[in-house]
Amino acid sequence: MNKNSSNIMALAPNTSNKRETVCIFGTGDFGRALGHKIIQSGYPVVFGSRNTQPSSLIPKDAEVLSHAEAAQKAAIIIIAIQRQHYNFLTPLAEILHGKVLVDVSNNLKINQYPESNAEYLAQLVPGTKVVKAFNTVSAWALQSGTLDASRQVFVCGDDMGAKQMVMDIVRALGLTPLDQGSLLAAQEIENYPLQLFPMWKFPILLSLGLTAFFFFYCLTRDIIYPYVYENKDFSFFIVISIPNRICPILALTLLALVYLPGVLAAIIQLYRGTKYHRFPDWLDKWMLCRKQLGLVALAFASLHVLYTLVIPIRSFVRWRLSSQIVSQALNNKTEPLNTTNAWLSDSYLALGILGFFLFVLLGITSLPSVSNNVNWREFRFVQSKLGYLTLILCTAHTLVYGGNRFLRPSSYRWYLPNAYMLSLIVPCIVLVVKFVLIFPCLDKPLTRIRQGWERNPQYSE
Amino acid sequence: MNKNSSNIMALAPNTSNKRETVCIFGTGDFGRALGHKIIQSGYPVVFGSRNTQPSSLIPKDAEVLSHAEAAQKAAIIIIAIQRQHYNFLTPLAEILHGKVLVDVSNNLKINQYPESNAEYLAQLVPGTKVVKAFNTVSAWALQSGTLDASRQVFVCGDDMGAKQMVMDIVRALGLTPLDQGSLLAAQEIENYPLQLFPMWKFPILLSLGLTAFFFFYCLTRDIIYPYVYENKDFSFFIVISIPNRICPILALTLLALVYLPGVLAAIIQLYRGTKYHRFPDWLDKWMLCRKQLGLVALAFASLHVLYTLVIPIRSFVRWRLSSQIVSQALNNKTEPLNTTNAWLSDSYLALGILGFFLFVLLGITSLPSVSNNVNWREFRFVQSKLGYLTLILCTAHTLVYGGNRFLRPSSYRWYLPNAYMLSLIVPCIVLVVKFVLIFPCLDKPLTRIRQGWERNPQYSE
Amino acid sequence: MNKNSSNIMALAPNTSNKRETVCIFGTGDFGRALGHKIIQSGYPVVFGSRNTQPSSLIPKDAEVLSHAEAAQKAAIIIIAIQRQHYNFLTPLAEILHGKVLVDVSNNLKINQYPESNAEYLAQLVPGTKVVKAFNTVSAWALQSGTLDASRQVFVCGDDMGAKQMVMDIVRALGLTPLDQGSLLAAQEIENYPLQLFPMWKFPILLSLGLTAFFFFYCLTRDIIYPYVYENKDFSFFIVISIPNRICPILALTLLALVYLPGVLAAIIQLYRGTKYHRFPDWLDKWMLCRKQLGLVALAFASLHVLYTLVIPIRSFVRWRLSSQIVSQALNNKTEPLNTTNAWLSDSYLALGILGFFLFVLLGITSLPSVSNNVNWREFRFVQSKLGYLTLILCTAHTLVYGGNRFLRPSSYRWYLPNAYMLSLIVPCIVLVVKFVLIFPCLDKPLTRIRQGWERNPQYSE
Repeated sequence: MNKNSSNIMALAPNTSNKRETVCIFGTGDFGRALGHKIIQSGYPVVFGSRNTQPSSLIPKDAEVLSHAEAAQKAAIIIIAIQRQHYNFLTPLAEILHGKVLVDVSNNLKINQYPESNAEYLAQLVPGTKVVKAFNTVSAWALQSGTLDASRQVFVCGDDMGAKQMVMDIVRALGLTPLDQGSLLAAQEIENYPLQLFPMWKFPILLSLGLTAFFFFYCLTRDIIYPYVYENKDFSFFIVISIPNRICPILALTLLALVYLPGVLAAIIQLYRGTKYHRFPDWLDKWMLCRKQLGLVALAFASLHVLYTLVIPIRSFVRWRLSSQIVSQALNNKTEPLNTTNAWLSDSYLALGILGFFLFVLLGITSLPSVSNNVNWREFRFVQSKLGYLTLILCTAHTLVYGGNRFLRPSSYRWYLPNAYMLSLIVPCIVLVVKFVLIFPCLDKPLTRIRQGWERNPQYSE
Repeated sequence: MNKNSSNIMALAPNTSNKRETVCIFGTGDFGRALGHKIIQSGYPVVFGSRNTQPSSLIPKDAEVLSHAEAAQKAAIIIIAIQRQHYNFLTPLAEILHGKVLVDVSNNLKINQYPESNAEYLAQLVPGTKVVKAFNTVSAWALQSGTLDASRQVFVCGDDMGAKQMVMDIVRALGLTPLDQGSLLAAQEIENYPLQLFPMWKFPILLSLGLTAFFFFYCLTRDIIYPYVYENKDFSFFIVISIPNRICPILALTLLALVYLPGVLAAIIQLYRGTKYHRFPDWLDKWMLCRKQLGLVALAFASLHVLYTLVIPIRSFVRWRLSSQIVSQALNNKTEPLNTTNAWLSDSYLALGILGFFLFVLLGITSLPSVSNNVNWREFRFVQSKLGYLTLILCTAHTLVYGGNRFLRPSSYRWYLPNAYMLSLIVPCIVLVVKFVLIFPCLDKPLTRIRQGWERNPQYSE
Repeated sequence: MNKNSSNIMALAPNTSNKRETVCIFGTGDFGRALGHKIIQSGYPVVFGSRNTQPSSLIPKDAEVLSHAEAAQKAAIIIIAIQRQHYNFLTPLAEILHGKVLVDVSNNLKINQYPESNAEYLAQLVPGTKVVKAFNTVSAWALQSGTLDASRQVFVCGDDMGAKQMVMDIVRALGLTPLDQGSLLAAQEIENYPLQLFPMWKFPILLSLGLTAFFFFYCLTRDIIYPYVYENKDFSFFIVISIPNRICPILALTLLALVYLPGVLAAIIQLYRGTKYHRFPDWLDKWMLCRKQLGLVALAFASLHVLYTLVIPIRSFVRWRLSSQIVSQALNNKTEPLNTTNAWLSDSYLALGILGFFLFVLLGITSLPSVSNNVNWREFRFVQSKLGYLTLILCTAHTLVYGGNRFLRPSSYRWYLPNAYMLSLIVPCIVLVVKFVLIFPCLDKPLTRIRQGWERNPQYSE
């Protein structure tokens, strides 16, 4: 047997049946839950508390000692106490010297204090190795064992060895440690559990704004106008007809907005002749939330599909159909098949179906577990090639749906064009510019710029 | 270069090009497949077998020796032999002393033996370090390389060092080791591959029971009753119409049952004035299978959507529509548009669409890879806030669908109310109680209880 | 405190606040991006470059030195330079002796060079420990922090210690290292990022071929035939009607092709009387792309569902309906309900809905994050039992849809049977053979063969 193996060397002689003791300061909910879980994973646990009387709430196998006694028993101390009580640690500074302190605290507001709790702790008790960890884990999830939300535990700290020890515990609990670097990252880690979909804010606000605009636009054209001029009450259009106009408009516009920043970036790079200038901030932010924009667009597209498929079940549509047929029968005439209409109707339906199908495919590949299983080339192929194909199909769907309707005067009530025409503006711009950028005279320099070439090199390698 | 780094220290001098030898007892399917894979990962492998003649089935690079010889070559021995043959190891006890034995065995039935195979092995050959691992991996998957099912390997054992060595091998094979603690966990690990969706049992049995009940209920009301009193044969309703009544009823009821235990738990906590008493067992179990209940409800909702969308294609519906129109035409009358009907019909369709849309969103966020990427606050926001909104929309969908139908005598055939009314019972109870619990006079004490406050504190900290 | 613990032993005395320095040769895009990320993760980074003048592009905290100076500062050197420039390393051989060289390069074509870049590097600079890594990571993704595509980093190398050091860096960057074995694996790792869905090639080519065949088949029967004999222009059938014939045919055929290789394998095993002979190559390859075949089938099934659900919205269908009703009204006759028709129409719709529902369920369980959370037994249950149920339901759906249509002469235009009949061939064969294989006289020996029994044993254990 190869006894030289480092692995064997490290383990064989020192191997012991026990993991080292972990000390937890604080016997609140989170401290107890964490202690319970750590004991289950095979570590001896000792609690440090003001009150050392046994309590039925504290895990059976754990000892409860005074803070000083407990701290002496372990190399690693988890501080499961709120920040405002941290100063009780100052008298213990001598005992804590050289120990690993794990800050698990959270705040109630983002950036509540000037410095993070972990950095505050490191200042309070110098000579200790402070590691931030476990703050994203919920006490309830630890207790019930249903870690449905994230199993990720962000860890940061200035001491590599201390961080390693904490990450070993994290792994032993069946969680995934993610090293976030030095203690400077603690602020961000403490803000993380307070965030509520930060990347989704802009796409959702934008779509709410657009929804409101198009709602009043359609309200004016489709309900108020006929009421004023024809005295017809189509108020029930608010429920399905108008949403089914707004949804496709938003889906198409937002999908185009996913591809617009890429096109803008290409123009900027071509203009500047280099890729080493930073993009303006708004463009950077826009590019980072493209995935979210696309998913919101997909949500609107799905709603559009559902709203469209229920059309034949709607009471109003049935009434319109039957009154049309009855009037035909009463007038004793049968209309011949209009082949052009059949072509147009089938075409826009088919384009919509294929566009939606590709859109759903894009959505599926953006699922983390799927995108993790494709390589970079495949991911780019799906998100760029298939993405543009989706945009083309959806734009064509809208164009064919419109047909020559834009020529009819009835499409301009109160000088307002049909809402679908507005939805075509952004996608058409994106597609036209993209088409121009494909020409070799523009594509070649762009490719060279993206490979690092500069028109006016100002920087040496 | 910082030569003090522990990492470098551990690796630099002892670094070797070879991993330590692994011994496998048993040349059956699983032993060979595992051996093949371990060789591929760079470990030398030696097989221990009664029959040491070379065989074309055994991986080429592996030696085949007698059990005793093979065991002496390695520090780690994988026992790929069935439990009933374990006693051949007793004579080898001296050679095996201090070695790591890896138990990979599975049973045919849950809890087949009083103690787990791994514990039995540890008793048989004292002085060895027994580790349970690899039992969830399939020989076929190892051979074909298509690890479509789980890559997780549960590992447990009393010796930390031995466990670490086994987990290193697991990682080298490209699998994910999950430390399950001491050897006591072996029983559970051995039962795991025999389980068939244990968390789904209750939701599926419940929904089967409810389906059967509502099937006969609707059969009586919609087929037997018209046959008896009007002599009409609507037997084909069994195929689509009745399933399309049962599906929404089950979807709504099961969705409400997802939120009922939370409401019950709140009432119990308010009544007891503490959160430190354990809930009754049935409530605990119920709370743990809420996700499964919700997904079964989503399945029924999806079926309801599909059944509803095919309505206009159904031959019966087309016949009914055309005979209505023909009779209108023959009676020479055109009905005016009933705006109230249009409002009602559009409203319940729109409510259903929005409810289903949110329901699918809930389903997507419960995918493991998605829920792993949200923090706890976001997960709770989606599952609780969006969940209640879904329940409200779906209940409203059913209420508006019913309209004032519950006032008509025709809704009570044989004193049986329309089936949709039964489906409203649980969701309405949940929503009303939840609404009451939101009032500050109840919400405030509840929040305090959940933060650890007790009305009659019996425990000291 | 248990000071004997190996963990503590290894860490406590050597613990240092710093990670060891990493050297990067090359200040191109990828080198800079990787350097930036490595600095963020707490490693000191030194760049080796021909040009040692400071540049604003190079991360601030990094030193830029000559190649020789930089190499002396670190034990690990990342070669972020293209293969054609590797020979500049030859003069540095002495300094590089014993160091870990990380090859991050990629090629432009699959198998561009006879040996992999990493092996070429190892030959060029003997005495170094070459590790292949990071080639699947994109510079852009490193810079922007949006690692949407794979976080997996394939690592291979002949030296275990060197590989471990590189894998530690990979983990520190928040990526997942996957040990692929010795440096021989480098060729495959270098080809990986150039692949474009290799497993999908066969399913997609097959379905394109079948689509083309059935398109011209349906074109002939449904458009050319009526044009020739009845002078009717149904050219717009190309848009929806014909795709809606092709999609279900392909979905059903491909789904059957998923289960055909399993059935063939069983027959081969029964005939040979052993499972230890290898299957023919084509069967092996076929079995490995079953998942992809199934997902393509699901895509066609989804399109079929969408195409079917828009039927009532199609202008042609509305025209046909209204002209039927008008002619009924003009002829003054009302048709009675045809119960048989109602039964058939509802049955095939219900079978289709249930089949599609199960099909989607199969698709969801094949998502990596879902299949990772089920055990082997559950995975097999879903993919085999539910899979066959899906196949049975979809075949029944097609059979009932056809009804007794195959008896009518009008179904054989130009001697070509209706397209749906062709789609039934493969599924019926699979289901009949599978049904035969279930009989005990065949099932028993098959089970024994699969457990390792051989009819004519040629191999000893």
